[in-house]
Amino acid sequence: MRVSVIGGGSIGDEEYETARRLGEVLAERGHTVVCGGLTGVMEAVCRGASEAGGETIGILPGEDRAAANEYVETPIATGMGNARNVLVVLNGDAAIAVDGSTGTLSEIAFALNDGVPVAGLDTHDIDGVEAVETPEAAVEYVESARR
Amino acid sequence: MRVSVIGGGSIGDEEYETARRLGEVLAERGHTVVCGGLTGVMEAVCRGASEAGGETIGILPGEDRAAANEYVETPIATGMGNARNVLVVLNGDAAIAVDGSTGTLSEIAFALNDGVPVAGLDTHDIDGVEAVETPEAAVEYVESARR
Amino acid sequence: MRVSVIGGGSIGDEEYETARRLGEVLAERGHTVVCGGLTGVMEAVCRGASEAGGETIGILPGEDRAAANEYVETPIATGMGNARNVLVVLNGDAAIAVDGSTGTLSEIAFALNDGVPVAGLDTHDIDGVEAVETPEAAVEYVESARR
Amino acid sequence: MRVSVIGGGSIGDEEYETARRLGEVLAERGHTVVCGGLTGVMEAVCRGASEAGGETIGILPGEDRAAANEYVETPIATGMGNARNVLVVLNGDAAIAVDGSTGTLSEIAFALNDGVPVAGLDTHDIDGVEAVETPEAAVEYVESARR
Repeated sequence: MRVSVIGGGSIGDEEYETARRLGEVLAERGHTVVCGGLTGVMEAVCRGASEAGGETIGILPGEDRAAANEYVETPIATGMGNARNVLVVLNGDAAIAVDGSTGTLSEIAFALNDGVPVAGLDTHDIDGVEAVETPEAAVEYVESARR
Repeated sequence: MRVSVIGGGSIGDEEYETARRLGEVLAERGHTVVCGGLTGVMEAVCRGASEAGGETIGILPGEDRAAANEYVETPIATGMGNARNVLVVLNGDAAIAVDGSTGTLSEIAFALNDGVPVAGLDTHDIDGVEAVETPEAAVEYVESARR
Repeated sequence: MRVSVIGGGSIGDEEYETARRLGEVLAERGHTVVCGGLTGVMEAVCRGASEAGGETIGILPGEDRAAANEYVETPIATGMGNARNVLVVLNGDAAIAVDGSTGTLSEIAFALNDGVPVAGLDTHDIDGVEAVETPEAAVEYVESARR
Repeated sequence: MRVSVIGGGSIGDEEYETARRLGEVLAERGHTVVCGGLTGVMEAVCRGASEAGGETIGILPGEDRAAANEYVETPIATGMGNARNVLVVLNGDAAIAVDGSTGTLSEIAFALNDGVPVAGLDTHDIDGVEAVETPEAAVEYVESARR
């Protein structure tokens, strides 16, 4: 299935490793990563997925596909700014949030609004988000709860 | 200034009266209401503002302007579905949330992301949202904190 | 009714006067001008309408309402770039094109696609666009053909 | 490179074969097809590309990825209606139009507006569109004129 991975664009080493491992797990289990295509969690998860042979889609805020991080296989330019967050969520069957600030919160909200299962790794404590401790647990949760 | 009022599309009598009073206060103080143009909080706040002689803008998810509630003076159709939430927030200098579920949460998140002050009346408990008890207090907060 | 006025952002004096006169005629007949909110035809038609006491809505490509020309009464920011052209057309009951290049052509196409009547003043020669000679004739055409 | 193929959603057998052949040629020359993901020209070009081992991206107007034709490898849902036409064009380095009505005209206009080369097979006669007779000539043109 497709999993939207959402999270901060500017993160520390620990979160980077978590997101990278999440990308690996998703790819190993045959899932495609959908994300916002830029830096931080978006880069780390695409890197992990790409290194494990998985597919990655990056839905970008700007008009220039070249702005995608180097691990995005299929960049999609939108020119819509933050409204592209809606498309990131719309194109997943489930969502996993890693860390993140208000942009991530908006994506969590859209996912819950769409009735998509959401797992959270060290992210906002919101009703409906399944808080998990590891990338593996996040993937297991969304596999079991997928819409 | 313009104030984006965000909240549930399906609410009880008490929330309806709160939102209606909020519309009155906004209009009396010369502010324009921006909202999603439909039912519930959106209708109540437009009604209050309209009855007090204020201006109301409704930014609709669908393509049909006729879907706006009867108190919307300037309906704007978008055909963008939930992505119109981004436009509701973008068109205010501040935001006030009343009650509301995940759609409202997404709008709160976009407002915080944009650096717009947000007051909350009985809504999500999110860092950065100023929880207030009355419509008057909500308006006073956003007037003092406006961007 | 609402009339979307579409046309070039950079025009000569003659086109400016045509668009300004068009705004006057629309206002005098009680119609609201919807446009892209910027310069050229957009400014001229808003100016004419505003000076005749009419209402003007400017749907902007960027996120900043302050980018609207000074004759826009109700600016709507979108942050969607050229995709806002779709919204300019969607919010009119008819369209009038004045001069214009490829951006205007996209708006004409969207209007025809939506089944909205389109009058053209010295603009693209496209099947379905009623070529007229004067602002008055343009308004008369869209009044008679309105959807 | 990526080539946006635009054209009617409801076409005759001859246009279907032209678009299918166009997809084959694009795939054989290593290009990725970007289109609106639905029926008619969109289906035919994806089919041709897919049968020749090429890649296909379908950018859909609705929220449901399952609406894509069966030859779309990477469907992207937008929920934006006709505004998705802007994204179809934005995600190509060049555009080829086959047949088509006003929706196609809007895409041609956006492509010209973006400065993207456009080849036309039996489509609108618009300044800036290179009219060609065969799928091979269309691909050769956009290869030579690519942005």
